[in-house]
Amino acid sequence: MKTAAALVIGNELLSGKVADANVLALARELRRLGVKLRRVVMVLDDLDTIADEVRALSAAHDWVFTSGGVGPTHDDVTIEAVARAFGVSIEVSADVERMLRSHYGGRVTDGHLLMARVPSGARLVATPSMPWPTVVMRNVWVLPGVPEIFRMKLPLLCDEIGCERPFVSLAVITSLDEADLKPMLDAVVAAYPDVEIGSYPRWGDLAWRTKLTFDGLVPERVRAARDAFVDRLPLGTPLQTE
Amino acid sequence: MKTAAALVIGNELLSGKVADANVLALARELRRLGVKLRRVVMVLDDLDTIADEVRALSAAHDWVFTSGGVGPTHDDVTIEAVARAFGVSIEVSADVERMLRSHYGGRVTDGHLLMARVPSGARLVATPSMPWPTVVMRNVWVLPGVPEIFRMKLPLLCDEIGCERPFVSLAVITSLDEADLKPMLDAVVAAYPDVEIGSYPRWGDLAWRTKLTFDGLVPERVRAARDAFVDRLPLGTPLQTE
Repeated sequence: MKTAAALVIGNELLSGKVADANVLALARELRRLGVKLRRVVMVLDDLDTIADEVRALSAAHDWVFTSGGVGPTHDDVTIEAVARAFGVSIEVSADVERMLRSHYGGRVTDGHLLMARVPSGARLVATPSMPWPTVVMRNVWVLPGVPEIFRMKLPLLCDEIGCERPFVSLAVITSLDEADLKPMLDAVVAAYPDVEIGSYPRWGDLAWRTKLTFDGLVPERVRAARDAFVDRLPLGTPLQTE
Repeated sequence: MKTAAALVIGNELLSGKVADANVLALARELRRLGVKLRRVVMVLDDLDTIADEVRALSAAHDWVFTSGGVGPTHDDVTIEAVARAFGVSIEVSADVERMLRSHYGGRVTDGHLLMARVPSGARLVATPSMPWPTVVMRNVWVLPGVPEIFRMKLPLLCDEIGCERPFVSLAVITSLDEADLKPMLDAVVAAYPDVEIGSYPRWGDLAWRTKLTFDGLVPERVRAARDAFVDRLPLGTPLQTE
């Protein structure tokens, strides 16, 4: 199973001024691609911290997706941090510089042109539908923090990574509480090690107290685990399936 | 300045089934307490991973707040992981067991009683308004993942940590773009190293393109940095202050 990590960058997130929206969008897209998101790290706009995280996450996962820190101001240090993580210098992409000059015309400034900097050796991924290039350094995708633009970039992943084998998710919602259904659940967890099984209490809803989830890459196995759990519930237990 | 980290636990978050709501609530509360949230790590329901993170985050921050994994089912491993992080055993809290037996009465099960387990040496923090105890192991607060209950626990932090000196935040919104205002901003960033200054583009809003934020623990310094930036803007630049 392919794995991924996300590095979410921004003082504004850790100070609670802005709610992150990119983790959820990325997590859902990776599920559709059949890639397991194993870790998310959220850090401040600090060059060394970002560089250390990029290096560690890159070594431990098939792909890393960074979010944020790609503008022209003092708090935008992601490109420099990615270069430092891999011990490469920063160069100016002639292609991106040309696009910036064409976009801003006569009012282009040195600030705008800072956005043409890329780590040496990075690829620039673009498609006809997403002509503005995305910086990919080895297995690290450098994505912008602005949620609208972040989401616009996600379709690139399917082209590059493939999306033939999405995760399958099924669920059962019951009136039993977690402690009551634990013995039935433990038996199914033991019998289906290849299916990821989750149990989530629902706050305040006494009619539907617990949601059980069943996830995996093989649809038949996921369905079998779900059915095995339902079969173990006491006869007449109210349930909903999803 | 006191620092904190959050460890957010749950397969359901990394698979995109559920949107995390606890990071934002915690970040806002810590701001009110004047504590700097420096790192958030989101991991799967994996015992070793959680134990390793708890150990590392606890050593590097004044406080750590965990979210999730505290119920009775197979995917609830936070208590065990916290115990493992500090090399202590798990014991049953007689006080919590008594509360569980009193709450569930005749229908109490072994599953329910699993929720009385605490790492050996942990404190149980309770107040008259929040009688259900919260497990605190050294500098690690073990909080539940259900957002409604997570938020109910946050007032405990002010009692335990203090909340006399909150962060002060000011902001300026302008019609200039980030690249245009970069030279003025860089000068203020250099002159006010004790004020954290952020620059955020606003997507799609041409009238108010960029939001600048000014944050710190000393109100006069934050205000002075904000005013110094406004003074450098070209005369007649449209702006809003917050």
